[in-house]
Amino acid sequence: MSINISSLLESRTACEKADAADPLANRREEFHLPQGLIYLDGNSLGPMPKKALEHLEQAIRNEWAEELISSWNNAGWWELPQTLGEMIAPVVGAASGQLIVSDSTSLNLYKTVHAALGLRPERTVIISEADSFPTDLYILEGVTSTQQNIQRRLVGVDGDSLDELLDENVAVVTLSHVNFRTGELLPIEELVKKTHDAGALFILDTCHSAGVLPVELDKWGVDFAVGCTYKYLNGGPGSPAFVYVAKRHQQAAVNPLSGWWGHARPFAFEKDFQAAEGIIRFQTGTQPVLSLRGLQAGLEIAQAVDQKLVRQKSQRLTQLFLELVESRCGEYGVTLQSPTDPEKRGSQVALHCLNGFAVIQALIARKIIADFRAPGIMRFGFAPLYLRYTDVWDAAEALTDVLKTEEWREERFQQKHEVT
Amino acid sequence: MSINISSLLESRTACEKADAADPLANRREEFHLPQGLIYLDGNSLGPMPKKALEHLEQAIRNEWAEELISSWNNAGWWELPQTLGEMIAPVVGAASGQLIVSDSTSLNLYKTVHAALGLRPERTVIISEADSFPTDLYILEGVTSTQQNIQRRLVGVDGDSLDELLDENVAVVTLSHVNFRTGELLPIEELVKKTHDAGALFILDTCHSAGVLPVELDKWGVDFAVGCTYKYLNGGPGSPAFVYVAKRHQQAAVNPLSGWWGHARPFAFEKDFQAAEGIIRFQTGTQPVLSLRGLQAGLEIAQAVDQKLVRQKSQRLTQLFLELVESRCGEYGVTLQSPTDPEKRGSQVALHCLNGFAVIQALIARKIIADFRAPGIMRFGFAPLYLRYTDVWDAAEALTDVLKTEEWREERFQQKHEVT
Repeated sequence: MSINISSLLESRTACEKADAADPLANRREEFHLPQGLIYLDGNSLGPMPKKALEHLEQAIRNEWAEELISSWNNAGWWELPQTLGEMIAPVVGAASGQLIVSDSTSLNLYKTVHAALGLRPERTVIISEADSFPTDLYILEGVTSTQQNIQRRLVGVDGDSLDELLDENVAVVTLSHVNFRTGELLPIEELVKKTHDAGALFILDTCHSAGVLPVELDKWGVDFAVGCTYKYLNGGPGSPAFVYVAKRHQQAAVNPLSGWWGHARPFAFEKDFQAAEGIIRFQTGTQPVLSLRGLQAGLEIAQAVDQKLVRQKSQRLTQLFLELVESRCGEYGVTLQSPTDPEKRGSQVALHCLNGFAVIQALIARKIIADFRAPGIMRFGFAPLYLRYTDVWDAAEALTDVLKTEEWREERFQQKHEVT
Repeated sequence: MSINISSLLESRTACEKADAADPLANRREEFHLPQGLIYLDGNSLGPMPKKALEHLEQAIRNEWAEELISSWNNAGWWELPQTLGEMIAPVVGAASGQLIVSDSTSLNLYKTVHAALGLRPERTVIISEADSFPTDLYILEGVTSTQQNIQRRLVGVDGDSLDELLDENVAVVTLSHVNFRTGELLPIEELVKKTHDAGALFILDTCHSAGVLPVELDKWGVDFAVGCTYKYLNGGPGSPAFVYVAKRHQQAAVNPLSGWWGHARPFAFEKDFQAAEGIIRFQTGTQPVLSLRGLQAGLEIAQAVDQKLVRQKSQRLTQLFLELVESRCGEYGVTLQSPTDPEKRGSQVALHCLNGFAVIQALIARKIIADFRAPGIMRFGFAPLYLRYTDVWDAAEALTDVLKTEEWREERFQQKHEVT
């Protein structure tokens, strides 16, 4: 499939017209965006929804300061993991009762990998991908360090594909929907089917897809999923992550991080653990309420928009950027690291160039915010809820200028210290 | 030891005088306390320090809304777990480099129990206490569910004491400094010594002691500790917990929840996990920044006060309350569940009475906030940083009145639904 954005390539005026016709254009007003900034890092930390400020003020000044412990019941603090989980559910194609917001992505992955292994006790292999966001790999190391009969196999190491690695020993496959570095989008429905055909379970990491493209956890038959709320769901810095457990597994799934928030009767203070029914058993300890309250406004927006419209605009934004960059920046040694096929691409564009770190610093000085991921990758994220076609045009112009003028050579843009 | 508070028992005027002479009296001004409320539930959720509002406004309006991802470096977000850990360290008698704020108490206990077992690989028993806060027991069940050779023994079941349970199979003992229900304070230094004499390691749960009485982790030889920040450290609802790992164990200790925040080079995005040096390896995933920023002000206050003065006032407040209650409420079937010896008592007083739930509801209606813990325990917490002797007097008067008039019999104070 290709996307025709040729008219937009012609001029900034054409981009202005596209902005005027954009069905998502009015969403931009719902975010606080710093003056003059073009923010292409929503794939790292989303900007603040204006309503988040209201929710947080209420949570701090009223619920904590005035109402104190009564807010655990009266302001719904205790149920926030479920309340927020129910808000995310439709955004990722999950029916009710399968999702909570709690802890971090890393911790939720640990819980789900353990649970999946428990559901396939006769099997001993976990498959992941060498190019996963590293914390996913590190967590699998943690699991194998405590369960020493379990082994890890990685797609991509020695060129191995999932087909080659799947066999009757595989208990669980855990993959990322969108690659954090390149933006490559995997065909999850197909991979889940292969995994199930081999008798294994599938855990999906949706950190770089939830909120920016259609995710269909139920329809695709995903068994478990984890995801991030501070990127495209705009939940605030480090806002807690979510975990999805398909209804069919909930009764048998064991959360190894069994704390009182996952107990059937937490306020009976019983000595023995009895897991709550349903998804609640994937809770562990007390949750950071202020960070949860900051997330609500972002989810209200995500719920209100049509993810198909979001995806359509996202594909047009990334296509526009990469075509502008290819036609203007190729001569400066910039190469595209993301898939050219928009159907195989998430909502970010990765470019490689030798001096990527300095180039990104020069762009940031021009108030165009993108980021750098070692080794050599410049990442540009395109969040359709608040970005305009003209922003993409301006960012591509600026990048071209930084490269043409060699502005990046300035001392202030050089790496101050090694990444250690 | 006994504490002479006989002069205070005489009249409210005597209590007013004691307030006027209280060296901690001016600390009260640093908290936002709702008008007319006597807050005896700081052992559950501390009130908001006024400065927390400033920090949070800065974090939300400036760091998130305006500065966005640059705040990870420029506002010190990335280092918050360590920055805040260093602030708690002196409050619990720990030298630098041994404490971080991260995740929940339950999760930190899971990390430390695993680490302790790893340091005693030839041993297979964990000792805890039957009357621990239940999440501690539930987490131990989680550990034993993944490491099936490990067994749990509980102090208090069948009347067993630590002495009787300690033998050469015990890897680790985990106990609470102050009992969450009765307020009983354990002699930790002595228990650590016994534990070490048996060749085992000691994990201390300081949830109900940190910030309200002197804790000496280093001096007592504690190996690992966990603790809560939203009680006596006034960090805000569900603010992340802390974990302490004694320097001598850090090099060999393995955190099973090995996420990217615990990696030696998190931004090198390496495929294999290599634990950071020092306490940082006990970090896991991305932390909830807003909840961490809400905690700073409470720690600034805790650092600034002399914990010995806090303890002294705490003992006088609890002694005053229990003597007032004993002399006035005994005839209504109220019995003391906390130790009478102030040296064996934390900063709370537990009372039992058959209609405890309704009595607490009647007190709350009178704006005296305490809580109920099944079965039958009325808990009154006394946080010396913002409570006055007159508050104690008034609370005891109100309790007496509720019992004498049988106000608690009113329909509105009866339990609406079972704790399920």
